[in-house]
Amino acid sequence: MEKDAYAVIFTSRRGADAEGYGAVADRMEELARAQPGYLGHDSVRGEDGRGITVSYWATEDAVKAWRANAEHLGAQAMGRERFYDWFRLDVCRVERTYGFTRG
Amino acid sequence: MEKDAYAVIFTSRRGADAEGYGAVADRMEELARAQPGYLGHDSVRGEDGRGITVSYWATEDAVKAWRANAEHLGAQAMGRERFYDWFRLDVCRVERTYGFTRG
Repeated sequence: MEKDAYAVIFTSRRGADAEGYGAVADRMEELARAQPGYLGHDSVRGEDGRGITVSYWATEDAVKAWRANAEHLGAQAMGRERFYDWFRLDVCRVERTYGFTRG
Repeated sequence: MEKDAYAVIFTSRRGADAEGYGAVADRMEELARAQPGYLGHDSVRGEDGRGITVSYWATEDAVKAWRANAEHLGAQAMGRERFYDWFRLDVCRVERTYGFTRG
């Protein structure tokens, strides 16, 4: 990831109410990809319902614009009301990145 | 997480060679917890072998000291040689954190 990009770390646990979750998650992924400054994301959820999603953004303004997107605000409200037992969200500035791929 | 803490995002895919992985991972967790400036970590791995681990550190020096820890350097070498098909590591400064817990 380029230096001075932003990483948003979303750590959560899903609750029992799963109805509609997949459709909302798919739509949010589609919407995020179309946002200005979207650089990519990684998402993993374990069998116990805990998950970590990291999205990467070119600028802080891009993070704020995504957070304030009207359709995303609706999904955030559904997340608090129904989908998640808890979550934490860290907004971070990327200072450096190392990568490794088996040769 | 407190502002100006550091988050290290380790995104990886495990390979087929799993022998000894659990013991090394457990030992690294024990060792990290004992490092100065260690604040906590979250780790999730999915069924497809992809995982995200985020560790949190009080200062950049704490990140560097953990990276340079002799026993950790040995584990890092094993990771590249045997355990991971690929990984990426982002060193980030935490600018702000939001939390939610179902009431």
